[in-house]
Amino acid sequence: MKDGGKKSLAVLGATGSIGRSVLDIAGRYPDQYDIAVLAAHHNAEALAELALRHRPRHVVLTGSDAFPLLQSRLSGTHIRLHQGETSLLSCLDEDIDLTVNGISGIAGLLPSLRVLENGGTLAIANKESLVAAGTLIKETCRLHNGVILPTDSEHNAIFQVWRDRHVKAIKHIVLTASGGPFLSTPIEDFPHITAEQALRHPRWSMGPKISIDSATMMNKGLEIIEACVLFDLPEHQVEVRVHPQSVIHGMITYSDGSTVAQLGPADMRVPLSYVLAWPDRLPWLEDSEDTDDHPVLDFSQLDFLPLDAVRFPSVELARQAWRQGGLAPCIMNAANEVAVSAFLQHRIGFMDIIASIEHALSVMSVGSEISLESVLDANDKAMAVTRSWIAKKGK
Amino acid sequence: MKDGGKKSLAVLGATGSIGRSVLDIAGRYPDQYDIAVLAAHHNAEALAELALRHRPRHVVLTGSDAFPLLQSRLSGTHIRLHQGETSLLSCLDEDIDLTVNGISGIAGLLPSLRVLENGGTLAIANKESLVAAGTLIKETCRLHNGVILPTDSEHNAIFQVWRDRHVKAIKHIVLTASGGPFLSTPIEDFPHITAEQALRHPRWSMGPKISIDSATMMNKGLEIIEACVLFDLPEHQVEVRVHPQSVIHGMITYSDGSTVAQLGPADMRVPLSYVLAWPDRLPWLEDSEDTDDHPVLDFSQLDFLPLDAVRFPSVELARQAWRQGGLAPCIMNAANEVAVSAFLQHRIGFMDIIASIEHALSVMSVGSEISLESVLDANDKAMAVTRSWIAKKGK
Repeated sequence: MKDGGKKSLAVLGATGSIGRSVLDIAGRYPDQYDIAVLAAHHNAEALAELALRHRPRHVVLTGSDAFPLLQSRLSGTHIRLHQGETSLLSCLDEDIDLTVNGISGIAGLLPSLRVLENGGTLAIANKESLVAAGTLIKETCRLHNGVILPTDSEHNAIFQVWRDRHVKAIKHIVLTASGGPFLSTPIEDFPHITAEQALRHPRWSMGPKISIDSATMMNKGLEIIEACVLFDLPEHQVEVRVHPQSVIHGMITYSDGSTVAQLGPADMRVPLSYVLAWPDRLPWLEDSEDTDDHPVLDFSQLDFLPLDAVRFPSVELARQAWRQGGLAPCIMNAANEVAVSAFLQHRIGFMDIIASIEHALSVMSVGSEISLESVLDANDKAMAVTRSWIAKKGK
Repeated sequence: MKDGGKKSLAVLGATGSIGRSVLDIAGRYPDQYDIAVLAAHHNAEALAELALRHRPRHVVLTGSDAFPLLQSRLSGTHIRLHQGETSLLSCLDEDIDLTVNGISGIAGLLPSLRVLENGGTLAIANKESLVAAGTLIKETCRLHNGVILPTDSEHNAIFQVWRDRHVKAIKHIVLTASGGPFLSTPIEDFPHITAEQALRHPRWSMGPKISIDSATMMNKGLEIIEACVLFDLPEHQVEVRVHPQSVIHGMITYSDGSTVAQLGPADMRVPLSYVLAWPDRLPWLEDSEDTDDHPVLDFSQLDFLPLDAVRFPSVELARQAWRQGGLAPCIMNAANEVAVSAFLQHRIGFMDIIASIEHALSVMSVGSEISLESVLDANDKAMAVTRSWIAKKGK
């Protein structure tokens, strides 16, 4: 890495939703990320704005019409401007640590290949190139020791829980699908669906191409192929499940009964922060004080309830014992063993279990030194204390 | 490992639910696991039966009353019989690759310490010893280079998705709780709860001690402390969520917005197979033909729906294209790009998108050789074919 350990980034499709999300995260850590290249196809206005904010070394507009506008907006800066696809490929020959390819459509293919030919690391959100030329991309990666980081949210989910060592035990992977805007639309109405309706996705705000793909669910079709390519799995091992809450993005189910999954809010910054920091993680939510900007994982429909501390005081009691330290957890555990046994013998009531523990903790000193002897002593004493308290209660 | 690569096992608490589950899995792979030691406290009848089935080298009864019964049941075998806790500890000095400690209560402490003092690998389901003497256990493990495998289902879930490299970015971990049998019982009825009611757990079939702990939810209190010990986390980073479906057992939430989780059926054989095979996985469900015996993950309450193939034929179309191979995915992708664009321009209807792709696939040869040239050619040709088909339709 250049520049005192900074990761040098190229962001392709910089003005799209992927590009903006990457820059949102990387821009928070100017000491960690150096934006080397920003590229977009035609939105010169937005590209100039991003360039002024992030000060890349190179800016590329691959389309031709708006180049004069870009030049005028960035005149007087030291940013080097380039036009056309060939220039973009040349810029990718610079010393770049991570290229995020957020280009939409087949146009993403040549840049992906160039990054890999250079032995670079490619965070690939451009699914079309993987679909059209997956074997070519993988072969190029292998030949030149490149690295591909799955970046589409579903594939990134699989990537986050992937372990090479467990590949042989994979039963299948699951890509989840929100179902798009027409999940419950009667089939009779499908012929009359308009572009405007199709662009209104219930969960994600995305570019027009991917929004329509999401409405037809061709997006999921493309993603199945993408998964076969990225993870080298046969097609029958890639399942799709409709999961409108979009809480779980991807899962690996093993033949030992375990399923591992990544969950997250419907915000592309989450998978993008993962590839930005890979193989580490970037605690950008902790570092940001603007909590309005924090994506929230909505578990409300999954029955994840908070604990009722009135009915079940045991949990807070255990927390206190642990915080108190020393022999407190040992005393709690011992009193609990005796009380549970007494309850099973119908000698005390259900609520006396907690009362027994509270009693033992209140009359015994918790000390601070933990040795095998002190633990066994405290255990015996707490048991005796609790037995005697229960015997007295019984009278 | 002894015996031609077999893992040598000691199973403590062999007649309990943990012990039986471990033996159920290990017993399916006699070429991989060698049962060296079986130990139980008082159930001599059941212990003898397990010994006859699994043929361990050593059998230990730690309680005293029923030893003659054990002797008579196992007379004439070459199995060596031992009585008492001290004998158990001596047996643990044998050459053992993995000890599964499924003892209930504080009685599990000394055996755990002995395994770790020997630098052994300990799959620990005995939460009481971790609660009473967590720091001692961890310190013993560190001093003698032992290995602790979290085996309780919640902690095993965390262990399955744990990555040392990501520890600093952990926001919190979540232990899920089924809520036990009294989750919805009015608080006024709590004083009248009987042992029989408390033993009837809605999800899990377990021993009496843990069933009562589950009813008071002290089980979750113990598990919080267990998690602090096992994962070296402060107590405030260990959260509990009530999740009656018991589909997700544990989660790690990171400060980058991602949550990783392990999901599985409510069957202890799932986490136990993980520790048995660790660091690999054992595809015991694939290897077993008795599907009635397969635990099933019930997603029904989580809204994971199958895909409606009538409304959304795109997904099957993509699968077919991938199976067909060659340039088919490329043609599909190119036709889709053109059709989506035409739909956005109101030139074709929603359902014509799929029809466009089907048309392109039907008229073009998919070949078999993939090169950059063939991909770009097929892409251009499929686009042209689709444009012309759409233009004709428009007339």
